[in-house]
Amino acid sequence: MGAGTFEIDFEPIGKRVEVERDSTLLDAARQAGIGLASVCGGEGTCGRCRVMIMSGDVSAPVDADRRFLSQLELSSGQRLACRCHLHSDVKVQVPKASLVTDQRLQVEGASRRMQVEAAVRAFEVEMPTPTLSDLRSDLERVIDALETAYGLRKLFAEPAVIRSLSPLARRAEWKLTVYVRGREIVGFEAFGRKPMGFAVDLGTTKIAGYLVDLETGEELGAAGVMNPQIGYGEDVISRVSYVSRNENGGRELAHVVHEALNTMLGTLAEDAGVARDQIVEACLVGNTAMTHLLLELPVKQLATAPFVAAASAALDIKARDLDLDLAAGAYVYILPCVGGFVGADHVAMIIGSDLDRRPHGVIGVDIGTNTEIALLRPGVEHLTSASCASGPAFEGAHIRDGMRASTGAIEAVRIGANGVEIKTIGNAPPVGLCGSGIVDVVAELHRHHIIDQRGRLIREAAGVCKNAHGYEFVIVPAESSGTGRDIVMTQHDINEIQLAKGAIATGLETLLIATHTEPDQIEEVIVAGAFGSYLNLESALAIGLLPRLPKAKYVQVGNAAGVGAKMALLSLKERRRAQKVAGRTGYIELTMFPGFNRRFALSMLFPKDQS
Amino acid sequence: MGAGTFEIDFEPIGKRVEVERDSTLLDAARQAGIGLASVCGGEGTCGRCRVMIMSGDVSAPVDADRRFLSQLELSSGQRLACRCHLHSDVKVQVPKASLVTDQRLQVEGASRRMQVEAAVRAFEVEMPTPTLSDLRSDLERVIDALETAYGLRKLFAEPAVIRSLSPLARRAEWKLTVYVRGREIVGFEAFGRKPMGFAVDLGTTKIAGYLVDLETGEELGAAGVMNPQIGYGEDVISRVSYVSRNENGGRELAHVVHEALNTMLGTLAEDAGVARDQIVEACLVGNTAMTHLLLELPVKQLATAPFVAAASAALDIKARDLDLDLAAGAYVYILPCVGGFVGADHVAMIIGSDLDRRPHGVIGVDIGTNTEIALLRPGVEHLTSASCASGPAFEGAHIRDGMRASTGAIEAVRIGANGVEIKTIGNAPPVGLCGSGIVDVVAELHRHHIIDQRGRLIREAAGVCKNAHGYEFVIVPAESSGTGRDIVMTQHDINEIQLAKGAIATGLETLLIATHTEPDQIEEVIVAGAFGSYLNLESALAIGLLPRLPKAKYVQVGNAAGVGAKMALLSLKERRRAQKVAGRTGYIELTMFPGFNRRFALSMLFPKDQS
Repeated sequence: MGAGTFEIDFEPIGKRVEVERDSTLLDAARQAGIGLASVCGGEGTCGRCRVMIMSGDVSAPVDADRRFLSQLELSSGQRLACRCHLHSDVKVQVPKASLVTDQRLQVEGASRRMQVEAAVRAFEVEMPTPTLSDLRSDLERVIDALETAYGLRKLFAEPAVIRSLSPLARRAEWKLTVYVRGREIVGFEAFGRKPMGFAVDLGTTKIAGYLVDLETGEELGAAGVMNPQIGYGEDVISRVSYVSRNENGGRELAHVVHEALNTMLGTLAEDAGVARDQIVEACLVGNTAMTHLLLELPVKQLATAPFVAAASAALDIKARDLDLDLAAGAYVYILPCVGGFVGADHVAMIIGSDLDRRPHGVIGVDIGTNTEIALLRPGVEHLTSASCASGPAFEGAHIRDGMRASTGAIEAVRIGANGVEIKTIGNAPPVGLCGSGIVDVVAELHRHHIIDQRGRLIREAAGVCKNAHGYEFVIVPAESSGTGRDIVMTQHDINEIQLAKGAIATGLETLLIATHTEPDQIEEVIVAGAFGSYLNLESALAIGLLPRLPKAKYVQVGNAAGVGAKMALLSLKERRRAQKVAGRTGYIELTMFPGFNRRFALSMLFPKDQS
Repeated sequence: MGAGTFEIDFEPIGKRVEVERDSTLLDAARQAGIGLASVCGGEGTCGRCRVMIMSGDVSAPVDADRRFLSQLELSSGQRLACRCHLHSDVKVQVPKASLVTDQRLQVEGASRRMQVEAAVRAFEVEMPTPTLSDLRSDLERVIDALETAYGLRKLFAEPAVIRSLSPLARRAEWKLTVYVRGREIVGFEAFGRKPMGFAVDLGTTKIAGYLVDLETGEELGAAGVMNPQIGYGEDVISRVSYVSRNENGGRELAHVVHEALNTMLGTLAEDAGVARDQIVEACLVGNTAMTHLLLELPVKQLATAPFVAAASAALDIKARDLDLDLAAGAYVYILPCVGGFVGADHVAMIIGSDLDRRPHGVIGVDIGTNTEIALLRPGVEHLTSASCASGPAFEGAHIRDGMRASTGAIEAVRIGANGVEIKTIGNAPPVGLCGSGIVDVVAELHRHHIIDQRGRLIREAAGVCKNAHGYEFVIVPAESSGTGRDIVMTQHDINEIQLAKGAIATGLETLLIATHTEPDQIEEVIVAGAFGSYLNLESALAIGLLPRLPKAKYVQVGNAAGVGAKMALLSLKERRRAQKVAGRTGYIELTMFPGFNRRFALSMLFPKDQS
């Protein structure tokens, strides 16, 4: 261990890391690659990064610690990692609730039948060996053979691709598979190696990846991992602000995602028995901030009015420029975005759910940390979209006992004659509430008049107690919980949910008004995304999160953005369609729409009557 | 200084470097960036890397040392750097003759008038600032403005280029110069920044670079530096063999050239007051091995029969992929090569000298470590080319007192009534012989019958002495030389010259035979390249290095390859012409041509009669 550095030992993970004196524990966790939750990006305002100091010397508690931790917790060694500076070697215990890993990550979506017409095609050719009477260069030899056998004309390759040709051709006795994209050769392999592709839905919170056969369209594997940028802030604004505050922040945030993608791809390829050189194309979607951070595009102008992207068109970038280990010349195709925060993932959701081809009025809503909504009216050529800053409440953030959808999370709640009934993920002892559970609780409180229309807890109602800061409703008492503490929903939590559901409801309402659409002209509501798929629709309708339309009009489609990414990976026609969709989608900046504030205030109320 | 490392102090340069125990002094010199001559690439067979150990402990002399150094030299501390392992801190004196720097490097060539039609054009546009009612992305805004103002359609840019746009546009108040190449935007700058280009002739021994205004064609600066790969072997075969022997050899050799190019470009740009972001295109030529090493293309197949290139077509590669600091999206265009070792520099020499447009029979010869020859017959559509392995003798290598064309080199010699008359570069005291001086000496020895037709020194002739290994002719006695030693030409030296001139003469003769051309059908011989420019034609004709044609048919054109590189930098039409030239140039593998061995043996003889 060098002078001026300390060794930090993270338990129970058993990971050690050497850090500079006076680093924070959050810095140390990032360095160790530990996914410590940090909604606020290390600002000391979210209270999610709590850890327990087991041994060693750290800085004294500050106001932020006292805001989130009781005196007992502080004296037992609990601290916020982002406020805790290291003064010696330290051993620290990371509670499971402070980790962002081990979660349920939806990667599935309704699968789609389509004509495969991939950007990259494989051609097998056999060539004569060079001799003194046939002195063509290796590349010229391949290009001539492809022209003779397949009529391909004017092909070319860049040095990075040619590099692998000469040794491979001699090893494979001039029997090669050549991967061609337009006129460009993007890779070489021996005979019999089929071309594969990698589709990615790069979410703010999670990354879904798919390994796909580019000839048959068959999915060979799917994986979901957390977006490691979470360590720099759970919402996009925190991350963008991290990039603005830190000189190499952009590089850092891009790098962690590149690494995560590479690791994911490595696992998928290994499991499917596919060589990296066979993976000849990738296709990626994400919201505007996510793709900007991935590509290290400037984000400052995206975070301040009028919130414009650096680029919105579809982009081709060499995989190696994103440090992705694909075939030597492989490209990553990034779908176009619409504008503002309405990104490529929204376009992918639209084509993935076929929203653009509905003959009737339809709304598509993809609920996440940012919620995107698209509306299509019959007979109208263009779509209209908006992005709501719904925040991470439905992902469990800013909620006292909120957590992501992992083992022990309460995912469904019902208040009946026997009190509160719950269902947890994995049927494990309850440790907190995930998104669908949160919506259920609020809906049940509302149904039983335990909250009023403004969301205020009725202090006389059964289950409502007073805590140090106000009132709360006890869902699981300490003796039945997996944490030994009450699992509750506080007045503050309810207000957070009101903000989130209000943001989404306002977006939906504004879109209807802006497009002069009556609710009954909407024949279908497509609910996309992971949270939307596990969501209890009745609860969502009951609290006014989604418009009060007949439940039969709703369809939950899973990860439609991921499906759209796969479609664009497999078909140039779908890429053209995506570009057309992006081009014909208008974008409304909600906060600028007349009457926004009043509508937002009203949307936070709960419905008067129950359906 | 760490354990197991030593500090090596190079004098009189005053450079220090820390190296691993048991490294060789040649390794240390490479690490220190000192251009220590090494024709053989560190094999102990050329004897060029001699140094003087001033203090410290090194390994004992080995056979290689004894082959090149006398007992007196060895006991005075002289050693071959490549054979000398370090056992302690060492202080070492590097004699000037062992350095590859400080040389006369021809960068000039006959300048040419031509229509400028560069690949990259600059467009100035002014755009409206983004507002809430105009939310187009930054890139879309620029592309729309270019379409409106100039009718440019379907432009695109890659992320590396977009990266600079958002901050620049706001700084420059949306008044931009946009550099466009085909449909691709390769860079952005503020108003008024003209586009510049960088042309490079990457020679085995030296690199010539030119900074050029892409609108006027004006040359803003020119520079010449040694090719730092010389430290890995003076001829291409040694370098290729270094790459084969060392795992990261390819990376290493590419890297040193990338660095040299970057440094050269930095100096040229600074001197001309040009920003790096203004340099939007480069154009590079070199022989096949040089471009392969630059691009890290495989070279193994180039070094073994049938000697084929990995790729021979023209190539576009992003400047950043060669670590060149040009505009963010700038390309380096590499001219096509013909085949074998007949590379892009040969094609550039042809267009640079207008050889392909001569209405009469013409030969072009570019003498170097490899000598390339082209022949054009009137009425015949295609050219015929060959590459001769003439070796580095004319650059002073393998010649006892040979040296490159730097201060103190004897560049002209005449044996007259008063004995030997010499002229040195810079009129400095003579320290060795450069190429033109070597040819002069041999021609004079021949003229005065001091050597016979077979090149044998006549032992009775004046000036011929016996040394330990055989006979030698004293050009400058020790008392008049700058080294304190005799400057001589040995029997071995003369044999080396015979090999070199024989290789070139055989190439010329074979080309005539292969194309059924009579010598008198040749109306013109173009002599290109640095050595060819300083060469005394009469001497060259006298020793049979060049064909015995009337002196008036010869024209010495300087660095025509560099001129061709500049032409291709400035004009897409010249690139198409270069591609046409490469396509219509046949390539003869000399060593396979019937009668090669016999012709080569005869070519080594000296002419019987004197002109």
